[in-house]
Amino acid sequence: VIPSPDRRFVIIAEGMFGGDASKTARGVIKYSSSPTIAVIDSTKAGQTVGDVIGDVASGGHVDIPIVATLDEALALDPRPNTLVIGVAPAGGKLSPAWRSTIVQALEEGLDVVNGLHMFLGDDPEFRDAAARGSARIYDFRRPPERMEVATGREHLPGKRVILTVGTDCASGKMGVSLELTKAAREAGLSAAMVPTGQTGMMIEGWGVAIDRVAADFLQGTVEWLTEQAEQQADWIVVEGQGSLDLFAYSSVTLALIHAARPHAMVMVHQAGREVHHAFESSGRLAKLRSIEDHVQAHETIASLVDPSKVVAIALNTSFYEDDDEARRVIADYEARTGLPTDDPYRFGPGPLFARIREAVAALEPTPA
Amino acid sequence: VIPSPDRRFVIIAEGMFGGDASKTARGVIKYSSSPTIAVIDSTKAGQTVGDVIGDVASGGHVDIPIVATLDEALALDPRPNTLVIGVAPAGGKLSPAWRSTIVQALEEGLDVVNGLHMFLGDDPEFRDAAARGSARIYDFRRPPERMEVATGREHLPGKRVILTVGTDCASGKMGVSLELTKAAREAGLSAAMVPTGQTGMMIEGWGVAIDRVAADFLQGTVEWLTEQAEQQADWIVVEGQGSLDLFAYSSVTLALIHAARPHAMVMVHQAGREVHHAFESSGRLAKLRSIEDHVQAHETIASLVDPSKVVAIALNTSFYEDDDEARRVIADYEARTGLPTDDPYRFGPGPLFARIREAVAALEPTPA
Repeated sequence: VIPSPDRRFVIIAEGMFGGDASKTARGVIKYSSSPTIAVIDSTKAGQTVGDVIGDVASGGHVDIPIVATLDEALALDPRPNTLVIGVAPAGGKLSPAWRSTIVQALEEGLDVVNGLHMFLGDDPEFRDAAARGSARIYDFRRPPERMEVATGREHLPGKRVILTVGTDCASGKMGVSLELTKAAREAGLSAAMVPTGQTGMMIEGWGVAIDRVAADFLQGTVEWLTEQAEQQADWIVVEGQGSLDLFAYSSVTLALIHAARPHAMVMVHQAGREVHHAFESSGRLAKLRSIEDHVQAHETIASLVDPSKVVAIALNTSFYEDDDEARRVIADYEARTGLPTDDPYRFGPGPLFARIREAVAALEPTPA
Repeated sequence: VIPSPDRRFVIIAEGMFGGDASKTARGVIKYSSSPTIAVIDSTKAGQTVGDVIGDVASGGHVDIPIVATLDEALALDPRPNTLVIGVAPAGGKLSPAWRSTIVQALEEGLDVVNGLHMFLGDDPEFRDAAARGSARIYDFRRPPERMEVATGREHLPGKRVILTVGTDCASGKMGVSLELTKAAREAGLSAAMVPTGQTGMMIEGWGVAIDRVAADFLQGTVEWLTEQAEQQADWIVVEGQGSLDLFAYSSVTLALIHAARPHAMVMVHQAGREVHHAFESSGRLAKLRSIEDHVQAHETIASLVDPSKVVAIALNTSFYEDDDEARRVIADYEARTGLPTDDPYRFGPGPLFARIREAVAALEPTPA
């Protein structure tokens, strides 16, 4: 149902568009096969998406207007028919100021796509509004009914599983996962991306927002998602979450390593970032560990269950406006870590994927 | 409400009493301040608790009869007034054969205490039976409504937080936590145990079964539990869960390390165990890593957020019947790891706690 060519999105990101919390909006604009007609953010009304996030982050969709109200969005031609909650704040709570916009959208017949922890479909006010407008509510973070612990399944023969990991949240793991999957397909391989968060689910149309799954079934759910992908394709890119050194979310990161049991990991890092997103006030605990420490920690932790190597660095160079400077930073990281390094989001994923493919081919076979 | 001196338990562990899955039964029998009147397990009917699990595991409550049916238990004097579901199978599902016993108990007016993932209170058959018998259902694994991510709070001044960790599940972390808390109190310190699983909650009367919490709030919940304990006592022993090398549950273990942020960790290990409980069929992945690897991995992982050391080994020597042999095994582990080692469950927690206290006193102060 989502995505589909008949979906036309209006994305609400009031007061937040372009900021870290609006990564859902950016992901959907850039990657969804459904077009975005407008973004609602009254603090940036009159500008375009390109003005705020530029060409790369919008995937070339620079002309999408930013409007102040839902009414303005509904006056556009074509008229949007689906409202996307475009933010993913820490803890996933709904801003109370957005209630009236959501109610209005539902009453006007727009379906609502929600990735917050708060399920709109469980709220009587929204349910009633949806009934009045014959609209549907999609709560993408609602966990599956399946409640199974991991079994330690082996990968299907010949499959190659890559997990994106990172030094922080909101550093680009989802985008890198999508880009590497695209590159694998362009290289003539059969490839699938495993969405593990709500934005990836909105884009790909399947998956589980694993951070909402009960902890006992977290690893069982990741294993199950990986198995589904292996039944569809040969190269699997599992979307990573969080960071091993982030005190709030590291357990989700570990679950992915121990349950996807990747043949190889790709480390996503935002060059120049030293403090964890959204935890700037947490003092000493918010400091990012070095990329060398991260590589070592990921390999140590993987080896507790099943060995895996970090085979490449996907560097997010968005802090560097100039392309040449970005290339110099990439070369620095490559020299420093000895690992193939590139910004697949900015410069295209083909070259980095080719080097990842080479590294994976050189890996030892899984012990029997 | 639970525990209370007015509670008289009958524990159902049909076909499983004494086995790994009946750790809830054993924990409640040994540690609850509410007496257990009978255990239901028709495969061992006629024996006593002491016959099956012995003096140490029953906490001296060796004479409790094992009966075949609830009717037999209800004929005892004093009559039990609370049915405890005494098992914790992997995945926490209810054995269908137990339904009729639970319905009968509720209809007879017995409250039911349940630690399974399946919530009995949500099941219409049980709810109706409870209404007919004016009985209550306590689903201890129901997560709190609070949904907050971890904030990276600092410990209150002067508090000492110890986390029990282990090389497997069901290896004795809860028992060790209770024993060390008792030893701290006996040493004249104010101490509290933080229950993080359903059995600990039944015994202590508070806590959260963290394996049922949505992953995004797992670390926030552990942080909150630790904070509550710090407000009550000076020495905090946080009950560990799972094992870092167990592919099914390692994320819960990591969450405890990164959110309780212990000053020190105590490693619980069952001497002689080489394969993870309940995962014997999982081949190479079920193999326990060595205790040295575990110590190193725990310290590496802790250091990603906040440094912590393993300061002692609480060795479960239940595979060794002879006390002298157990003492030799303890001495071997102490020599091998260089860490204070004892079996606090078997030989009393006082000596090991004294050595832990010394080690904690010698730790560097937390960096500012």
